[in-house]
Amino acid sequence: MPKSETVFTVAHRVSEQDRTSANRHRGGILWFTGLSGAGKSTLAIELEKALFARRYQVYTLDGDNVRQGLNTDLGFSHEDRTENIRRIGEVAALFAEAGFVVVTAFISPYRADRDRIRARHPKYFSEIFINAPLEVCEARDTKGLYRRARAGDLKDFTGVSAPYEPPAAPELEIRSGEKPVDACLADLLAFVEQRLALK
Amino acid sequence: MPKSETVFTVAHRVSEQDRTSANRHRGGILWFTGLSGAGKSTLAIELEKALFARRYQVYTLDGDNVRQGLNTDLGFSHEDRTENIRRIGEVAALFAEAGFVVVTAFISPYRADRDRIRARHPKYFSEIFINAPLEVCEARDTKGLYRRARAGDLKDFTGVSAPYEPPAAPELEIRSGEKPVDACLADLLAFVEQRLALK
Repeated sequence: MPKSETVFTVAHRVSEQDRTSANRHRGGILWFTGLSGAGKSTLAIELEKALFARRYQVYTLDGDNVRQGLNTDLGFSHEDRTENIRRIGEVAALFAEAGFVVVTAFISPYRADRDRIRARHPKYFSEIFINAPLEVCEARDTKGLYRRARAGDLKDFTGVSAPYEPPAAPELEIRSGEKPVDACLADLLAFVEQRLALK
Repeated sequence: MPKSETVFTVAHRVSEQDRTSANRHRGGILWFTGLSGAGKSTLAIELEKALFARRYQVYTLDGDNVRQGLNTDLGFSHEDRTENIRRIGEVAALFAEAGFVVVTAFISPYRADRDRIRARHPKYFSEIFINAPLEVCEARDTKGLYRRARAGDLKDFTGVSAPYEPPAAPELEIRSGEKPVDACLADLLAFVEQRLALK
């Protein structure tokens, strides 16, 4: 029994510096925000692939892997959206602390929700405005959601029946309504390399 | 505008297989369970360090990084403990999907809560019983919590005023009340290498 008391020797976690050295890049949160149909998920996943090919530790959080799991208990009311974004921000910060570049692809329409994450995790948070005009997103309507929202089938739909509050001073703006994917991706990659790569 | 429509080309995420090849190990959840004072956090952090030194992508989720952030809204009632464990399980699965070996160090006293995570994420989940007898944990009482629980200062304290349900068939049992840290750690490392390392 005495020997087992050494279990309580103070243990130190692997430091962020050690993770950065091993990965050759810092951890960080690339917080995409923008309307439905602006291209957040597509650009996030293209960025994930491009960074992975450059040997980054990178992961995308989006509706596909968060809404069905962690946040399955939440709906689309203002309160639930706020809690949805709060939890995603905290999970993203855990990933960043673990050394990852984590890309989050959520509409996250409320400025206060995004600012709260920035305030809690200033070291990691970069706000990236995936900016396509509502008319463009609605004209695309790849998932048919705008049509349903206009018909009244979808409540609280951002841009139609719920507000979208654009970032006041995003770290990066991607005009995805005007530029092709490759050009958007190049801008995103340059941002990451400049900001998170080990020099 | 036409060019931007390529934003909706179907994007495929980085596959798990690609992550495994890059990291030379699979992702997985090492779910530690056991009484307060059994050595979960200490062993988790020692394991994290040892795996990191072996070039694993590894991260520990514990009270220090989860209770103050993601689960700051939850208390210690049965319902809140269940939701606490549910969320941690979902976050751990995201880490495992991202290629990490994630160690979770929570008492997680209810069998049903642990079994629910196993059922949702069978590919990743390994239950590891950090097993020290109550008498040993209470005699150690490094944080003074047992004393406070016996005095009635702490409600719903596992082992004193709330139940602990041991795993029926854990993937691994570590008798941390009898073995020194080094021996516990060797058993944990052997388990990880056998189960998650790329052969």
